[in-house]
Amino acid sequence: MFKGIAGSEGIGIGKVAMIKEQDLTYEPKSKLSVQDETARFEQAVQEFTQRTEKMAEEMRNNVGDKESEILMGHVLMISDPAMTDEVKEGISGGLTSEAATEQVFEGFASMFEATGDELTVQRAADLRDIKTRLIKTLLGVEEVNISALPAGSVIVARDLTPSMTAGIIRENISGIITEVGGRTSHSAILARALEIPAVLSIDNITKELIDGEVVIVDGTDGSVIASPGSEEVEKYRELKKSFDDEKKELLKLAGKPTVTADGRRVELLCNIGKPDDCALVIERDGEGVGLFRTEFLYMDSKEQPGEEQQFEAYKKAAMTLKGKPVTIRTLDVGGDKDIPYLGLEKEDNPFMGFRAVRYCIKNQDLYKTQLRALMRASAFGDIRIMIPLVTCVEEVRAVKKLVAEIASELDQNGVAYNKDIKVGVMMETPAAAVIADLLAKEADFFSIGTNDLTGYTMAADRGNANVAYLYSAYNPAVLRNIKSIIYCGRAEGIEVGMCGEAASDPLLIPLLVAFGLEEYSVNPVSVLSTRNEISKWSVKDAQKVAEEAMACSTEEEVRNVLTKYRR
Amino acid sequence: MFKGIAGSEGIGIGKVAMIKEQDLTYEPKSKLSVQDETARFEQAVQEFTQRTEKMAEEMRNNVGDKESEILMGHVLMISDPAMTDEVKEGISGGLTSEAATEQVFEGFASMFEATGDELTVQRAADLRDIKTRLIKTLLGVEEVNISALPAGSVIVARDLTPSMTAGIIRENISGIITEVGGRTSHSAILARALEIPAVLSIDNITKELIDGEVVIVDGTDGSVIASPGSEEVEKYRELKKSFDDEKKELLKLAGKPTVTADGRRVELLCNIGKPDDCALVIERDGEGVGLFRTEFLYMDSKEQPGEEQQFEAYKKAAMTLKGKPVTIRTLDVGGDKDIPYLGLEKEDNPFMGFRAVRYCIKNQDLYKTQLRALMRASAFGDIRIMIPLVTCVEEVRAVKKLVAEIASELDQNGVAYNKDIKVGVMMETPAAAVIADLLAKEADFFSIGTNDLTGYTMAADRGNANVAYLYSAYNPAVLRNIKSIIYCGRAEGIEVGMCGEAASDPLLIPLLVAFGLEEYSVNPVSVLSTRNEISKWSVKDAQKVAEEAMACSTEEEVRNVLTKYRR
Repeated sequence: MFKGIAGSEGIGIGKVAMIKEQDLTYEPKSKLSVQDETARFEQAVQEFTQRTEKMAEEMRNNVGDKESEILMGHVLMISDPAMTDEVKEGISGGLTSEAATEQVFEGFASMFEATGDELTVQRAADLRDIKTRLIKTLLGVEEVNISALPAGSVIVARDLTPSMTAGIIRENISGIITEVGGRTSHSAILARALEIPAVLSIDNITKELIDGEVVIVDGTDGSVIASPGSEEVEKYRELKKSFDDEKKELLKLAGKPTVTADGRRVELLCNIGKPDDCALVIERDGEGVGLFRTEFLYMDSKEQPGEEQQFEAYKKAAMTLKGKPVTIRTLDVGGDKDIPYLGLEKEDNPFMGFRAVRYCIKNQDLYKTQLRALMRASAFGDIRIMIPLVTCVEEVRAVKKLVAEIASELDQNGVAYNKDIKVGVMMETPAAAVIADLLAKEADFFSIGTNDLTGYTMAADRGNANVAYLYSAYNPAVLRNIKSIIYCGRAEGIEVGMCGEAASDPLLIPLLVAFGLEEYSVNPVSVLSTRNEISKWSVKDAQKVAEEAMACSTEEEVRNVLTKYRR
Repeated sequence: MFKGIAGSEGIGIGKVAMIKEQDLTYEPKSKLSVQDETARFEQAVQEFTQRTEKMAEEMRNNVGDKESEILMGHVLMISDPAMTDEVKEGISGGLTSEAATEQVFEGFASMFEATGDELTVQRAADLRDIKTRLIKTLLGVEEVNISALPAGSVIVARDLTPSMTAGIIRENISGIITEVGGRTSHSAILARALEIPAVLSIDNITKELIDGEVVIVDGTDGSVIASPGSEEVEKYRELKKSFDDEKKELLKLAGKPTVTADGRRVELLCNIGKPDDCALVIERDGEGVGLFRTEFLYMDSKEQPGEEQQFEAYKKAAMTLKGKPVTIRTLDVGGDKDIPYLGLEKEDNPFMGFRAVRYCIKNQDLYKTQLRALMRASAFGDIRIMIPLVTCVEEVRAVKKLVAEIASELDQNGVAYNKDIKVGVMMETPAAAVIADLLAKEADFFSIGTNDLTGYTMAADRGNANVAYLYSAYNPAVLRNIKSIIYCGRAEGIEVGMCGEAASDPLLIPLLVAFGLEEYSVNPVSVLSTRNEISKWSVKDAQKVAEEAMACSTEEEVRNVLTKYRR
């Protein structure tokens, strides 16, 4: 048995289809004239482009638009003169096309990788994928034809590149096992999109497994069993069946409203990080967006994104969601999120430092640019503004003042926007919890951010392993804060939602139903399971659980009560 | 007008007595034989020792025991063979006694200074003082004779060394001005002990002022006015008079109980950091110790202090306080306090990290050593154990379990201790505030640590200038937490005190009286002024202020209400 990272849920049983690394050795120095070598390179780029466009087309049919766009992105990258000119320069210096390609693409990839930023690191993987395929094209090495694999194959490879996955025929592939990649790698994202069980990041697995042997892939707990006994196969067949049945059950909930067992309707929204994710929200049947993180816009560029760029991104989100709520959190920089060009100082305790709304209020030009883009985009859908890290009434008033200023500017210039745009507060600090009644008078809605609320309430940094035992939303102190926020918001008649991880925690859902939470915002992949969990609880039953849980003195007692009642 | 650090309160008007830096140049290479040069050095050490002992005697009579001990410490340091042997080694190498002294003492001083630890840095200042005086002795340069200064002198010097202050005749010195030093420097401590107004740390002030000119020293706001006009002198004379009158009024409160205007008795204790400070508590009429920080024991040594060493320190405190409460906070390491040999890891957010009780519970040997020392010392007075940074009931239970284990060990060995020793909780995290009712069932007392409570509630690092505007106990969220802690403690019938800075804030005292706070623990110098402030408020009047303040929505509104009612 091998343990790796659970990349895509479900259980697969099948035969190992080993994807071998191909021999890509090449001559470094060209024997051709610079002119001929350049022609050779240009020819390869042309072939590459044609083939990739074809793959993107296949991908669109087999997987989806979003995944297809990754490949179309490759076409764009290879056409970028910044890249090709540098390669040609290498060729002028006497290198072969292969060596020059290697040098240039590897150089950029390392640079991207060094940033440590997840999005940019991912782009490094794309560059390496392009590089390898271009070298294959140059060497005439045929690409692995995954579409030819027979039914019941389990792909085992060092890595699963976007180009490889293009050929996957979903019905034929029972599982995926790789040596590299995490839950947010392309491999994982694609495997989840294809609903193929996947376990990633098992060292040396391409050497441990033998081509053709039977293997079980448990993508739910991240384990792989090679040559299992018949009992094991039987056990996993049953697990697979119940997983598949459950999934089928869940699929029945698609398109249905989210209601408690006694018919109380609640909203089930999604947390997303990019405008592109909006399509996923629709696909996974989310009823809108409860948390749209806007940091990507700032992290994705070398300078502050302009108003137009932001406006387009928010407008796209609003239009994709077609009138469903799109709750956009304004820039939450600082804490563990750095954006180099904003010039934040190094702090002793960044979580308790100059971040989020604190930074934005003091950098009004930057903030007004974002708010103006948001307000203009509000003409195209139900955009809502959410303020992160609020600790006092003054901060909400300061933001509302800026919104009013911008509104009057837009009025003067005859620019359209939603005059009733909602401005809400992300409830994630102890201070906000304690003065929830006061904040409810200022805000149009609340959204409880349980991740930070837990950390601040317990004075425990989520990323610090030594205090991880304190970081739990089941602590009585955290639950009381959550309950009090919901009660205060409802007492003032404003909508109260939750966008932290607790919103999709099956153990906590009876408590949230009992407290009267009206909006659950979850990861798109958790929409149907959360809808299902909510449907199990009537308010009356939930209140019984809540009563017992809230009478506990310790985290452990709470956890035991919640586990006892889990449905 | 010059601005510096307010080192010692009060107003002084007088004539500048400039203490010039003396010419201490010397030959580096000795022309004497090693034997003669060594004899010269030993002679100087002997002279130094005699003179310092005499100065210590004067200091004891003029200032106090504690200040005298600083000078006796100098005698000990100069007799330390680790120092003198190294100097003699330098002499063997051909240096003059002056050069060798400079080299060795400066070397140690720089090393101490580099630690950055306040106590050790202070010792560097002592070494430099010894060095300078020893060189003066060697050169035959006469020491500045401060005792000869006429009445109405304002001492102006680069620094005020312990040896210089020994000669001060309190009645003759109207003020002190220096170029270096902070509120915790020797100069400041001595000035306060002598009740001489002092302003420290004004760059170049020895060059800006002229010997003999009239100068006003405002040690309350840290300003100095050179050659003031007659109107200014008049104004400051009046300020001085009202300051002196107030002080006289306050002195009338010495020895009296602390009572509200309507006769409700409360306890007025002190916050201290060293067993020596216990004498100060008695001197300043504190009714006990509400917070004894024990970090000094750990910071002051190169390894973990043993049980005996700690026992002696706690016993000394207990005996000095003669049955009055001595509330000892167990080790509060981590956060902004590092103790190198404990090997704490560097953390991203140390305030939300592995510190205080979290560290102690996981390092039981270290913790049990401290708890055992505390319990043994409890046989000698009213020692109480206070647990810092509690966020959950489990932590209190874990400490009480250790206390019970130690009790049974002590019982077995027939060692005396107070079987009813109180174990209380320092209430300084948002979680503790939220579950104060649950903690009150576990703890024998509460003490509200308003400094950390403010920081954690507002998610604002006190040391971060960019978020300093959020760090205020007047925030409604902080005040509600304070009120709720007091109510929960009283509802459960346990004593509730406060040991943060808010306990001596005149603006907050009506609120604390209204909330029913029973124990105020303050800096020893604030005992009488706090007693005075408390005596101004009947519960009924205080409740009127509290009602209005607690109805406010913002920090500014609260501050305005409290200022309006200030008495």
